[in-house]
Amino acid sequence: MKFSFRPTEGAFYELFTRAAQNLVRGTELLNELALPGVDVQSVSDRLTDVEHDSDQITHELYKKINSTFITPFDREDIYSLGSQLDDVMDHLEAVGNLLYLYGLTELPSLPREMHELVNVLDQQAKVTADAMPRLKTMKNLEEYWIEINRLENDGDRAYRMLLVRLFSGEYDALTVLKMKEVADELEDACDAFERVANTVETITVKES
Amino acid sequence: MKFSFRPTEGAFYELFTRAAQNLVRGTELLNELALPGVDVQSVSDRLTDVEHDSDQITHELYKKINSTFITPFDREDIYSLGSQLDDVMDHLEAVGNLLYLYGLTELPSLPREMHELVNVLDQQAKVTADAMPRLKTMKNLEEYWIEINRLENDGDRAYRMLLVRLFSGEYDALTVLKMKEVADELEDACDAFERVANTVETITVKES
Amino acid sequence: MKFSFRPTEGAFYELFTRAAQNLVRGTELLNELALPGVDVQSVSDRLTDVEHDSDQITHELYKKINSTFITPFDREDIYSLGSQLDDVMDHLEAVGNLLYLYGLTELPSLPREMHELVNVLDQQAKVTADAMPRLKTMKNLEEYWIEINRLENDGDRAYRMLLVRLFSGEYDALTVLKMKEVADELEDACDAFERVANTVETITVKES
Repeated sequence: MKFSFRPTEGAFYELFTRAAQNLVRGTELLNELALPGVDVQSVSDRLTDVEHDSDQITHELYKKINSTFITPFDREDIYSLGSQLDDVMDHLEAVGNLLYLYGLTELPSLPREMHELVNVLDQQAKVTADAMPRLKTMKNLEEYWIEINRLENDGDRAYRMLLVRLFSGEYDALTVLKMKEVADELEDACDAFERVANTVETITVKES
Repeated sequence: MKFSFRPTEGAFYELFTRAAQNLVRGTELLNELALPGVDVQSVSDRLTDVEHDSDQITHELYKKINSTFITPFDREDIYSLGSQLDDVMDHLEAVGNLLYLYGLTELPSLPREMHELVNVLDQQAKVTADAMPRLKTMKNLEEYWIEINRLENDGDRAYRMLLVRLFSGEYDALTVLKMKEVADELEDACDAFERVANTVETITVKES
Repeated sequence: MKFSFRPTEGAFYELFTRAAQNLVRGTELLNELALPGVDVQSVSDRLTDVEHDSDQITHELYKKINSTFITPFDREDIYSLGSQLDDVMDHLEAVGNLLYLYGLTELPSLPREMHELVNVLDQQAKVTADAMPRLKTMKNLEEYWIEINRLENDGDRAYRMLLVRLFSGEYDALTVLKMKEVADELEDACDAFERVANTVETITVKES
């Protein structure tokens, strides 16, 4: 280990943790969309609020990088991790926005596989939020990225079955196109969580 | 600042500047597509010429990296910046080519949101071309990447509204699919400009 | 050259070579899909087996990175190269799986441009497998990445003409959507081979 724990470093771990906790807020909002009679516009608006909070955290992180002389690990890696956590939120927000903009929630119900994907994202968010504070000691992170990769595989499978469903002839072509956009954002979010985990792995490899 | 300005370094800044100026030529050609009675094949062909010029500049840059002992900043960052500027051009060329190949310009008119996206790209190109010479002093670059990010947000919004329009039922499914391909290339170009700005930011963070 | 050839390093080159040879197995399986009366499910299943072998090789590589004190080049680059070779396989597997899942092979025949893309991938795989052992000496790699980029351009062109064909009105909208998914995975594989070559280029630039 190249460094000891100093107050200024604590701020970095705290910002990563806050960013990941914000993602949990995001996936929980998406989970609400499965509830009967949900107000989709309200969910979409609250997702936009949560996304603004993420931007704020990312901005604080970048300022912190620029004003700190010795960072706990490579500046570029801190930068990558911050922007990748922010990327996840962009995709979560897009899901809510598109469902609302395309009026998809006027359908009797969304395909079951879509809810499965949201559920995978919710688990990824929680595992990520749990792992971020452990960056401080660089311990027990392997189980985190193994779990994220396992969940990403689940997500891939759910995404693939969602497309089979969408292309089955059950929906008209324009509805398929709209739902495909939402499906892609869900899968992008899933992949974005994996990129976060890969960056954590890279950092750990460097520091070990 | 770790380095002084030396003749050999000047060549790098000049190549980045020429690459970015070439992108302005590309977005100006796309802007011509909004003109009534435009010859789409001619615009597409001229975009291909401009794209070849970009390849030439990128090639010169790579040769310069390989033949220069001390580079003004990390070799890999020079390499990234060069290939990312080249990526933008690939997307701009694709827009022109696809509009021509798919015969989309035989429609009475392209959706307004498509022209809005081209307009955002044109602004991004100009802001980028203005910023490249400032790499020499590493000064006043923050306003550049803030502006690129602002424009990228505008682009995202225009793209989203373009999809709402495409999926509104106004066009048949195959036309939607064709226009969606063009829309995706426009949005990819927008994101590619943002990646250029992010790399400039990374370089500035390292050098500061 | 910063290092001499040591036994422990040999293991890295061998793993990269095995990973690339596995990609040749993958593209050869995709080539079988052009044969009349082919059993698509069997090809899809065998692709999944080959993909599992790739995962195994990638896993061995990561363990090797973590247990080796002096690596032949930057840890992060070894890591990137390994994960990028693995990415190619993910796309190859997806092609076989989607063709099977969507029942596309029940069509009288797949578009010729699709077979052209598979053929490009097969050549990229072979060129990559030939190049990997040359990482040991860092010699004659330039011709490899030039060839990969040339092939990637061929692939781009075939992909573009494939889309023109798909959007021509010859197929119904849902069939177009299904084939578009397959086409995108083929093109992603093509790009993924290019990223492998770019990483090799980056490593060579650093070591030279």
